[in-house]
Amino acid sequence: MDLTEKLLESKEVFDGKLLHVYRDEVSLPNGASSTREIVRHPGGACVCAIDSDLNVAFVRQFRYAYGMEVLELPAGKLERGEEPYFAAARELREEAGLISDDMIPLGELFPSPGYTDEIIHMFLAFNPEPCGQSLDMDEFVKVEKIFLVDAVNMVLNGEIRDAKTQTCLLKAYMLMEYLSAQEEDEEDKEEGK
Amino acid sequence: MDLTEKLLESKEVFDGKLLHVYRDEVSLPNGASSTREIVRHPGGACVCAIDSDLNVAFVRQFRYAYGMEVLELPAGKLERGEEPYFAAARELREEAGLISDDMIPLGELFPSPGYTDEIIHMFLAFNPEPCGQSLDMDEFVKVEKIFLVDAVNMVLNGEIRDAKTQTCLLKAYMLMEYLSAQEEDEEDKEEGK
Repeated sequence: MDLTEKLLESKEVFDGKLLHVYRDEVSLPNGASSTREIVRHPGGACVCAIDSDLNVAFVRQFRYAYGMEVLELPAGKLERGEEPYFAAARELREEAGLISDDMIPLGELFPSPGYTDEIIHMFLAFNPEPCGQSLDMDEFVKVEKIFLVDAVNMVLNGEIRDAKTQTCLLKAYMLMEYLSAQEEDEEDKEEGK
Repeated sequence: MDLTEKLLESKEVFDGKLLHVYRDEVSLPNGASSTREIVRHPGGACVCAIDSDLNVAFVRQFRYAYGMEVLELPAGKLERGEEPYFAAARELREEAGLISDDMIPLGELFPSPGYTDEIIHMFLAFNPEPCGQSLDMDEFVKVEKIFLVDAVNMVLNGEIRDAKTQTCLLKAYMLMEYLSAQEEDEEDKEEGK
């Protein structure tokens, strides 16, 4: 069955600085109509930057929606026309004061498909070098370094709760494990085992 | 430094059926003021239900915000006063037609802390039994079963993009691996190895 919902009428109900909220009338697969309330968002990028000692760069900032500080990977929204890769590199530089010339994509994240079209592009950066933070005037961010295995345990025990941070860390960890297993295999082969 | 932002004035800018959007004036740690646009959401629950053959129950539904079908774990928002555990069990029953009496929490997820206060409570359910779907009139959901390891690969290769589904699956997988390693250890001990 084709589950496509077709737009009948769209109405912008809030035109904010960050959020653009729409109430759309749609037709359902059974011919009935329904309302969809959604947030249109420019999308974002986040980056798990791991140094040679396997420490990951985090930012801790006050998140007004939750009324508390939240530990997250460096991230931010895409600027107009900006490629996700460059947004990730920019946020890593601005928020964490780090630069990496070895960054690979870790896939996309749909934060809450029921009501937002936001896509977060995840990246893994190797061996970042310090270059100094450059925050906006109204940005207050503390940088923390946490050993990858400790960070993964903080995901598993519930201390890290941000969605992109949980997903990106676990994917980065599984990829690092895979790469290190491959390396061991190759070393074994070279030694003729 | 205390990074707390204090509410100066709150204004509801959209009072929808699902979404409640606020534009709040807040005071920043440096004394300046700023605007926060946020979505207030009742929260949700999702569940990774794994049967004895290590197959996971998924739902595929059209997500209007993305204009396409998205593969997700059974999930839904909390009803007024509903405990997350019961919401997860209810959604598993309604969306996937499954009941489990062995369900454990896998932590919380903040989908997009920059603009929503939604919390998704994740659960892992063992050995679910079929009981028949009971969808709302305007819900169109296809149920799919996918082998856990295949599903994890679909997360790693980018085929599964929903945030709660990625996080909950990877956590479930790592927990299952840990439990199975523990079981092997105990068997080894019993055999006096």
